[in-house]
Amino acid sequence: MLDLASSTPRAWVDEAWASIDTVLLDHAHCEKKAASTALGFLFRYPMDAALQAPLSAHAREELEHFELVLGLLAKRGKGFGPLQASPYAARLHDQLNKVEPARFLDSLLACALIEARSCERMKLLADHLPDAEIREMYRSLLVTEARHFHMFVEFAAQRYGLAETRARLHVLAELEAAVLREPSEIRLHSGFAP
Amino acid sequence: MLDLASSTPRAWVDEAWASIDTVLLDHAHCEKKAASTALGFLFRYPMDAALQAPLSAHAREELEHFELVLGLLAKRGKGFGPLQASPYAARLHDQLNKVEPARFLDSLLACALIEARSCERMKLLADHLPDAEIREMYRSLLVTEARHFHMFVEFAAQRYGLAETRARLHVLAELEAAVLREPSEIRLHSGFAP
Repeated sequence: MLDLASSTPRAWVDEAWASIDTVLLDHAHCEKKAASTALGFLFRYPMDAALQAPLSAHAREELEHFELVLGLLAKRGKGFGPLQASPYAARLHDQLNKVEPARFLDSLLACALIEARSCERMKLLADHLPDAEIREMYRSLLVTEARHFHMFVEFAAQRYGLAETRARLHVLAELEAAVLREPSEIRLHSGFAP
Repeated sequence: MLDLASSTPRAWVDEAWASIDTVLLDHAHCEKKAASTALGFLFRYPMDAALQAPLSAHAREELEHFELVLGLLAKRGKGFGPLQASPYAARLHDQLNKVEPARFLDSLLACALIEARSCERMKLLADHLPDAEIREMYRSLLVTEARHFHMFVEFAAQRYGLAETRARLHVLAELEAAVLREPSEIRLHSGFAP
């Protein structure tokens, strides 16, 4: 599903539930980071006119989700605050091509894979968490995450062709799965090693 | 009005009209930059919980405006692309305090003044441009810019008190007016020296 090279085991949900407010806070930070990454593309590639409006709308959607998670945290009596990020995104980023034109392709596909992993884990949370309100939030979000995965893959395919995109996505998916096997504290994109 | 220390003369509109597609393109870049600046606050001050949701919503609004201006450019047959920014924001930024807690105050008030100047110039464009569609767009935007000015001043006052905020706003408004007197190519925040 969604081209991921590994599946998060059901047991990850138990670990997430045991630290659910940390997972929610991390999730809020992830949404903000996703908006910032989308804006980063707009600043790095102003010459790519076709990218501008869709990625701007995408950033707005991520910010809506940020505000949604903030609202849920507030209802649970939890404020927003700093949180040490999972090493996941940085470790994945370390392994990307840093020289254009490969850099842009890798950046788009890394975003696609992060969205795919978010979707996979949100589905687990939506299906198995004991709390109905949090389950419902994840159910409402996971459709969007799947759409975001496809958007980033399509951006890549439009610019690099489908064959090169599929081939590189396969390689990066293996790297993403390897990063997930590195031990780390519980976060939306870390915890129990699949 | 809006605590600005100078008024843009009516003649600036003629200069803007003569390069209107450049001004619109610059305006699009400014909206994107405003969204990015708002996100920057969220990353720099994650411990300031009360700032998060309002600034996230603010960033979304700036991105909506970015997309609005992109749409108008497209209707005029103009694509989006890179543009050398006006030195205005960087020159203003050069003169801000870089050490906390003064840095946060100055950053908020610089945003307030940039919003105020945008509002002042959008009012001129809304009142005097020969093109009805562009006039209408600026009319729709300038109310928001005025609201953004007040939001940033209020953020500052809540954190630094009204007296310190008013005093510093007065000093920075003089610096902003001085920056505008430096000669520069026509942009939303530059051109004809007031």
